[in-house]
Amino acid sequence: MSEHAETTGTPAVPEGGTGVWFIGARGSVATTAVAGCAALAAGLCPPTGMVTETEPFASAALPALSSLVFGGHDTVDWPLPKRAEALTEQGVLPHGLARAVHRELATADREIAVGGPSAGDMRTDEELTAAFASDIEDFTRRTGVARTVVVNVASTEPAPAPEDPRLPTSSLYAAAALRAGCAYVNFTPSTGIRHPFLVEAARAAGVPYAGRDGKTGQTLLRAVLAPMFHQRALDVRAWSGTNLLGGGDGAALADSAAARAKNAGKKQVLEDNLGTLPQGEVHIDDVPALGEWKTAWDHVAFEGFLGSRMVLQTIWQGCDSALAAPLVLDLARLTARAQEARISGSLPELGFYFKDPDGGSAALAEQYDSLIGFAARLREAR
Amino acid sequence: MSEHAETTGTPAVPEGGTGVWFIGARGSVATTAVAGCAALAAGLCPPTGMVTETEPFASAALPALSSLVFGGHDTVDWPLPKRAEALTEQGVLPHGLARAVHRELATADREIAVGGPSAGDMRTDEELTAAFASDIEDFTRRTGVARTVVVNVASTEPAPAPEDPRLPTSSLYAAAALRAGCAYVNFTPSTGIRHPFLVEAARAAGVPYAGRDGKTGQTLLRAVLAPMFHQRALDVRAWSGTNLLGGGDGAALADSAAARAKNAGKKQVLEDNLGTLPQGEVHIDDVPALGEWKTAWDHVAFEGFLGSRMVLQTIWQGCDSALAAPLVLDLARLTARAQEARISGSLPELGFYFKDPDGGSAALAEQYDSLIGFAARLREAR
Amino acid sequence: MSEHAETTGTPAVPEGGTGVWFIGARGSVATTAVAGCAALAAGLCPPTGMVTETEPFASAALPALSSLVFGGHDTVDWPLPKRAEALTEQGVLPHGLARAVHRELATADREIAVGGPSAGDMRTDEELTAAFASDIEDFTRRTGVARTVVVNVASTEPAPAPEDPRLPTSSLYAAAALRAGCAYVNFTPSTGIRHPFLVEAARAAGVPYAGRDGKTGQTLLRAVLAPMFHQRALDVRAWSGTNLLGGGDGAALADSAAARAKNAGKKQVLEDNLGTLPQGEVHIDDVPALGEWKTAWDHVAFEGFLGSRMVLQTIWQGCDSALAAPLVLDLARLTARAQEARISGSLPELGFYFKDPDGGSAALAEQYDSLIGFAARLREAR
Amino acid sequence: MSEHAETTGTPAVPEGGTGVWFIGARGSVATTAVAGCAALAAGLCPPTGMVTETEPFASAALPALSSLVFGGHDTVDWPLPKRAEALTEQGVLPHGLARAVHRELATADREIAVGGPSAGDMRTDEELTAAFASDIEDFTRRTGVARTVVVNVASTEPAPAPEDPRLPTSSLYAAAALRAGCAYVNFTPSTGIRHPFLVEAARAAGVPYAGRDGKTGQTLLRAVLAPMFHQRALDVRAWSGTNLLGGGDGAALADSAAARAKNAGKKQVLEDNLGTLPQGEVHIDDVPALGEWKTAWDHVAFEGFLGSRMVLQTIWQGCDSALAAPLVLDLARLTARAQEARISGSLPELGFYFKDPDGGSAALAEQYDSLIGFAARLREAR
Repeated sequence: MSEHAETTGTPAVPEGGTGVWFIGARGSVATTAVAGCAALAAGLCPPTGMVTETEPFASAALPALSSLVFGGHDTVDWPLPKRAEALTEQGVLPHGLARAVHRELATADREIAVGGPSAGDMRTDEELTAAFASDIEDFTRRTGVARTVVVNVASTEPAPAPEDPRLPTSSLYAAAALRAGCAYVNFTPSTGIRHPFLVEAARAAGVPYAGRDGKTGQTLLRAVLAPMFHQRALDVRAWSGTNLLGGGDGAALADSAAARAKNAGKKQVLEDNLGTLPQGEVHIDDVPALGEWKTAWDHVAFEGFLGSRMVLQTIWQGCDSALAAPLVLDLARLTARAQEARISGSLPELGFYFKDPDGGSAALAEQYDSLIGFAARLREAR
Repeated sequence: MSEHAETTGTPAVPEGGTGVWFIGARGSVATTAVAGCAALAAGLCPPTGMVTETEPFASAALPALSSLVFGGHDTVDWPLPKRAEALTEQGVLPHGLARAVHRELATADREIAVGGPSAGDMRTDEELTAAFASDIEDFTRRTGVARTVVVNVASTEPAPAPEDPRLPTSSLYAAAALRAGCAYVNFTPSTGIRHPFLVEAARAAGVPYAGRDGKTGQTLLRAVLAPMFHQRALDVRAWSGTNLLGGGDGAALADSAAARAKNAGKKQVLEDNLGTLPQGEVHIDDVPALGEWKTAWDHVAFEGFLGSRMVLQTIWQGCDSALAAPLVLDLARLTARAQEARISGSLPELGFYFKDPDGGSAALAEQYDSLIGFAARLREAR
Repeated sequence: MSEHAETTGTPAVPEGGTGVWFIGARGSVATTAVAGCAALAAGLCPPTGMVTETEPFASAALPALSSLVFGGHDTVDWPLPKRAEALTEQGVLPHGLARAVHRELATADREIAVGGPSAGDMRTDEELTAAFASDIEDFTRRTGVARTVVVNVASTEPAPAPEDPRLPTSSLYAAAALRAGCAYVNFTPSTGIRHPFLVEAARAAGVPYAGRDGKTGQTLLRAVLAPMFHQRALDVRAWSGTNLLGGGDGAALADSAAARAKNAGKKQVLEDNLGTLPQGEVHIDDVPALGEWKTAWDHVAFEGFLGSRMVLQTIWQGCDSALAAPLVLDLARLTARAQEARISGSLPELGFYFKDPDGGSAALAEQYDSLIGFAARLREAR
Repeated sequence: MSEHAETTGTPAVPEGGTGVWFIGARGSVATTAVAGCAALAAGLCPPTGMVTETEPFASAALPALSSLVFGGHDTVDWPLPKRAEALTEQGVLPHGLARAVHRELATADREIAVGGPSAGDMRTDEELTAAFASDIEDFTRRTGVARTVVVNVASTEPAPAPEDPRLPTSSLYAAAALRAGCAYVNFTPSTGIRHPFLVEAARAAGVPYAGRDGKTGQTLLRAVLAPMFHQRALDVRAWSGTNLLGGGDGAALADSAAARAKNAGKKQVLEDNLGTLPQGEVHIDDVPALGEWKTAWDHVAFEGFLGSRMVLQTIWQGCDSALAAPLVLDLARLTARAQEARISGSLPELGFYFKDPDGGSAALAEQYDSLIGFAARLREAR
């Protein structure tokens, strides 16, 4: 941080501001995004990790960071400023930042509605969808923003049983976003808008949407390494990986059904890039001692010329919230601008951000080219 | 290997065959290339690691592997079949292969001329160039090949002193290639055709040439990982690396001047992709106990959102000869075909293969696109 | 190998030779042990990896390697010389060794009896035990050895259900060893002699026995690293590990019940050394592409002074058979000599070799001291 | 930290307190030691990393942490409380601790004298020694402590030229300690008391002393792993290592002469434990981006049974100050108590702490046993 001075006064809600509604608004990712956005808007930190702050996006007419207004749903009741202090102790936020942006955190905190359904909630899917949509519409009206983007950053939910007549929670929120006419981003492996029951609603809503499952570590690496092996005609025999996660994510994914949802994305990246799925497992372990940090080890056994056996190993040690938050802000800005530019439907051009994108290449370099092309399209739609 | 049967009889020199003349013809890379080419031509092994055997090159009219005829210069006197046995004991060549392709190894062995200059050799640069060129021309005439490509796979030489009036050895061979009208590939970090004294000769010769320094391990990884950090707007603070090499390469590079030549290429890839050179050193250690294998450890310290500190480490354990040999065959075929198609001068389209290419992007994905474009150009030049 | 000359003629069965009866006699470990013992006896290789060939054991009156006579049970029917060829292709045995010791492999091959029970075998536990014991006794008589040691190196079996009235296979063989009056070693995590039904028989047999589960890689490391953390008063918060195994071991342990048996030993070492079990899981993956090689990654998150968070990671890449075989020969010699010296019962002094020893310290340094003390005891028992 | 309350009032100098005089008193290690000692004495943190706080030392009559009084020499002028804040931003000290122990830091800060010699200082060695000794004696008198231990934690100095008639700075301070009748500990690779000119003075002073070069990371690991390879009769062929250091240590050791001093210790541990020095280099890189953290990568190529080739790699990521500070406190307590118990001369029993100890075993387990024996000796000397 270049300085620690606290921003003061009432934040002026900008004319034509953009709402960002987080599902999981009190989680680490949302808290980091809110705090970081405020810090960047105040010039306290450089925009490291934000792709939309790089040169190719300069004229894409994205909403300014200072124009973003935050709110969301959550089921826990821990104030954002407190959460930010905890993230500081974990080394996620730099010293003094939580205090410097306390006002923005408190403002966002007041815009967080109680999510659901909690145990014993007797409402139908329709009633829940309506209630959530109403929360979002109220927020849009109350804050006077021009439009609101709904972004799912909640804990991963178990993969739903195919025969279940009810929508999983993530899909209830997605349905609410559609009903409220909002662009929708699913940064988690949960079902969200991809549920078969939502196909028609998604088509009818005429909003842009993107997902699924943010690519922040092991899969990001796989998306550049797998194409390398492929381009060099090397034969990947086995690709094995272990992820150690602390924080809430680790606990959620220790549930094997939730982990299965996440692992599917990880393997998909290999299969799409290599043309075949190599041997090897992916493990996700809950290791609370790691706090907000995660470690991913990958072991790639490959064969070269004349069957020679070689190995590549990678170890990625990152902070999940710090990796995810800038991408989440990127996506909110891009989909808000897309909606403004009357672009609707799924956005395969945003595959750069996702483990399990809505089509397009699985190789990061091609996904980046596609993203840059999307920036150009937004620029021209001015 | 699918079978170990020995190929028999005299190899029919193919009409319009292509000569491949190795500088360093008795080294591990050349031996592996000769043995592997024979094994592939005989269908004993799949062409793993050969990019020119993948689909995009199918119609580029490259010379068939069975049409390649090998010869070269070397200063040592160890028969290729013996060398191949030693490589088998090191695990580079599969069991039985050296025996199966013994005839092809012996044929190539007979085409190896004595290189130089050795200590006390009093010939001038001009006399040496003429002698080497004459060796190459004799080979072309004797074998009846349509043309010969000269490929430098000799041990790395120390970076020459700027004021030295003599050409370094690698440049003498490059000059000989130009005089003999041959396409030229420099797979090593040595000076080769890049010497200022050769600028005019290279222009006048009207042959294609490519280099410098094959990208087979640590730098290959850097060429995909550095673009990833850049595209994600992550701030690479330090990139440190250590290479452990056995074999002759390790011994040659333990010489600090030779290592400096190699390291320059490794750092260049970072600077070109990141826009700035991060902190960090690169070490090259000679570890004879590793035999033909090398290990490269890279440690990348980077900052993400709000200055969060993260680390990526990679460990690459490969067999240098097995990584280099298929690329050397690729390059021989591509430059031979380029000469046939009357393409001359430096070939930045082959940057995919080199640490220190003749221009073009430093990102592997873009280099691959450029290479595929080159294949299309060769196809159309049919 | 210092030379590849084949040993010739009929091996003279040494006066007072020692029989080594392998359960799993056609597996990689047994084959490597038989081939290696012959190679060492013939002076073809140095005794790397054999602790009993180091100075402290020089006067312990252990049976000479040249006096060991091999046989065993197995359920597959693949000749040892063929198996040795396959191990050569995998890089486990050096070139030429299988041929050089072909005679010894063939001799051992003839002493391998059909194990069991196979599917549909209707014999009772008593009948099976009697049949196996009879096989062992026949071998002892036929070869004229002074005594026979039974060593279990078969694939790990699933942990038995507590209520099962039948003995697991490994315990049937252990019962047979007791009945035949043989010393017994269990190098696997299977139950073997530790079954409650065998307590009385083990006591009555008056033979020495040792186990369980050879310590050859990840656990070996843990047995020196965990004491280091403990002695330095560092607080290990989480110890996570992943094992990638090819070969038969990987397939057997992909069965989760078998893996559970193995993992119990791995965690025990941590708990015994640290005084508490840290967070973290252990995974065992079957990765057939790795062949006879295994890779173990360990990640240790620990806290130091004032709660500072640090990490140690280890990567162990080894050949399981080459690690196990010399220890198996050590154990056969040590237990045979113990029986000769009228030592009986469990041998906690051999804890150096095992993940789950029969008591004693869990720290390798103390286990080594105990082993050296055992050598002194054997020396004095001369 | 269990609580963040600030300790209040004037610290009562305890009757018979013990002085700890740091050479390099404003460095990271000294600052962490002073802050940590105060935090532990106040019960704010558990004594993780302090060996002398474990059970075997309970009755050794060591000086209480609350009785330690700090002072020292340094050449820079940065107040300790500021330094502690900087260490908090680096993640070395936990949040709030610097504030909680501000008073103790300020007290120690007032006891720091200006060290030397700085450039242009014309004093002779004798004059410098006398001046430093006088500073130490003044401190002892002023604070009323029963005795003072001098501990060198300054930056590593280049290895002195053998023919230099002047003492290196570290030896001047050691001479001063001897003259002041103080026990002396050298936690750095610098020469200190080991200079040939000091042999007689050390003998005559009748004080205990210990060194050299604290074992806090890579060498600590080597001291447990090398004995493991040796005990298992495995043949270590090459042991290569790279250290990435930020902080002042990295900058000091980027100087190749200083690095050479440090590396000698690292290699000595291998040679002493393995009986022979394997192939392989050790690199120390200055990587300022790592701040107070260091990363050490080790690659061990070893051969097992029948020459099979295997590899162990370790990656140690630690905070140097947090690793060193508790050991420094241990050593101050142990040598102070030794002096009280009239033990003098070099203390090989403290080899557990050093890369290059004053004799004794090089294996950590044996060094630990020796240390525990020393605790017993101190207990009996009560």
